[in-house]
Amino acid sequence: MPARFDVAAVGNALVDVIAPADDAFLATHRIAKGAMTLVDDASSAALYAAMAAGVETSGGSAANTVAGVASFGGQAAFLGKVADDLLGKVFRHDITAQGVHFDGPALKNGPGTGRCLVNVTEDGQRTMCTCLGAADRLTVDDIDPAVCKSAAILYLEGYLFDPPPARLAFAKAAQLGRDAGRKIAITLSDAFVVERHRAGLLAFIDSEIDIVFANEAEVTALFQTDDFDAAAASLGARTRMACVTRGEKGSVILSDGAVELIPAAKVDHVVDTTGAGDQYAAGVMFGLARGLSAAVSGRLGALAAAEVIQHYGPRPQTSLKALAQQGGLL
Amino acid sequence: MPARFDVAAVGNALVDVIAPADDAFLATHRIAKGAMTLVDDASSAALYAAMAAGVETSGGSAANTVAGVASFGGQAAFLGKVADDLLGKVFRHDITAQGVHFDGPALKNGPGTGRCLVNVTEDGQRTMCTCLGAADRLTVDDIDPAVCKSAAILYLEGYLFDPPPARLAFAKAAQLGRDAGRKIAITLSDAFVVERHRAGLLAFIDSEIDIVFANEAEVTALFQTDDFDAAAASLGARTRMACVTRGEKGSVILSDGAVELIPAAKVDHVVDTTGAGDQYAAGVMFGLARGLSAAVSGRLGALAAAEVIQHYGPRPQTSLKALAQQGGLL
Repeated sequence: MPARFDVAAVGNALVDVIAPADDAFLATHRIAKGAMTLVDDASSAALYAAMAAGVETSGGSAANTVAGVASFGGQAAFLGKVADDLLGKVFRHDITAQGVHFDGPALKNGPGTGRCLVNVTEDGQRTMCTCLGAADRLTVDDIDPAVCKSAAILYLEGYLFDPPPARLAFAKAAQLGRDAGRKIAITLSDAFVVERHRAGLLAFIDSEIDIVFANEAEVTALFQTDDFDAAAASLGARTRMACVTRGEKGSVILSDGAVELIPAAKVDHVVDTTGAGDQYAAGVMFGLARGLSAAVSGRLGALAAAEVIQHYGPRPQTSLKALAQQGGLL
Repeated sequence: MPARFDVAAVGNALVDVIAPADDAFLATHRIAKGAMTLVDDASSAALYAAMAAGVETSGGSAANTVAGVASFGGQAAFLGKVADDLLGKVFRHDITAQGVHFDGPALKNGPGTGRCLVNVTEDGQRTMCTCLGAADRLTVDDIDPAVCKSAAILYLEGYLFDPPPARLAFAKAAQLGRDAGRKIAITLSDAFVVERHRAGLLAFIDSEIDIVFANEAEVTALFQTDDFDAAAASLGARTRMACVTRGEKGSVILSDGAVELIPAAKVDHVVDTTGAGDQYAAGVMFGLARGLSAAVSGRLGALAAAEVIQHYGPRPQTSLKALAQQGGLL
């Protein structure tokens, strides 16, 4: 059966609060720079009170990715959990307006929609503190079989390795996709996630995954080495395709013994790196789902990442399809 | 007594939802391009459902202005009404984090915090539909005499001419400021506001106002003429200082018989003109409150307007003080 969706994603439904900060602020609040830290409601409120004036925008790593796929002109779907509150309505509005299929019911009588406080330092680096809220209540019941079976690529957000019910949801989604002959992709999401779940992630990759996305910190954490090339090679040996990003140094795609070195796309001024990895994954998966080569798909990823780091917020603000056409990639 | 605040403002407390749109969208929804239209809750919800994915950010014209004054390093205060809800908390957080004094109590058991839906077309023009919500419940009881008496300039938002209780609040604030020997400033806000309240505005300017801010459409609407120079001269004759903006053509400040022509500051790419007039007023009033000339104050206004139109959102994202120092203005 032809795929109805290019990409369907399972991930945390979050609304981001993005504000500028300096390194001293991160130090004062003991937040690990560049990482994602899970915080409870009280810590989230206290940190928000201390943060600078911000901008609210829909986020969530895999949700950002499917928004990017839609911006390329692709068909995309999202599975995740919001609450029946204002932020939940904002999240639903935004992802739907971006053309992504999202019809999961909102959580009632539980925690509010998840929030990610993003402090952006002058170097463009983003440091995140996430209060999962309703996103933490994703269960197997939220995994719509019709969606999982009908996507060329089913994409799983590594952050969901933290809550056990979400891991079960993951496993179910992957099984449904595999049984329908679809490709299964995962992003490792964060070096601390990798450290917390190294063995589980490796076993999951070995048994379920066709395509792995990781950045430099994540892939070296996964194989407990400082040697990037060795770590990337190890990942490439365990999965059909490994896509590893290195910031301004570009990315590497290892696939069936071949290695593609993808240069980063040109950027005038880095404002906020939130969403860079998410949009890279969007470009790569859109390309693969449309039958393009790893090299061209990687360049679509680089182009999408370059768009998103030049403004505040984790989702494209201009049409990625138009940018890719201007760049001669589509 | 020396002024505690450079500028205190009375205005609508609003949270903006900013999204891209095209002219066809405005036509379909019968919205006047470039204007501010008041809408009820149901119309606001229907328009939001039809809008593209957006970004939420604190707004409100006069609130944006005092945020700009604070960004210049000035002391600023805001008087306006939010509800006891999430958007009200966001508004309070942002304006407080920007260093603006704002301690008015939130409205309980009434409408929610006001929302302004801002559709930004590719030419950078912003078109606004405002559901006032709690902002519409501002009354004389919200006018803190201590604040009104202790600001070098008391700034009034013309949009508040619409709700009668807010007009009474206006009058009280102006009276308190005048009695304390302070300067009173007003922005005409919108050409439709001017058309609805022309006689009342002129009478108010004649009796209460020292400084008037207007753009080209507003000043020509006020004097029912197409002749900009004639309209600006008419305004200049009725008030101690008239500051009239003309987009990329810069601005004109008429004061005590003198005319200063202020060029627009250089802008690489206009993204979203939301807040341009608000930030112009911030720069001018900060300069005047600090004893700078009309010419230098006007250039501070031009600099602030240039900053805000190069990104989404109506408040500065970089320090206006630092920009002004780099430009040799402070």
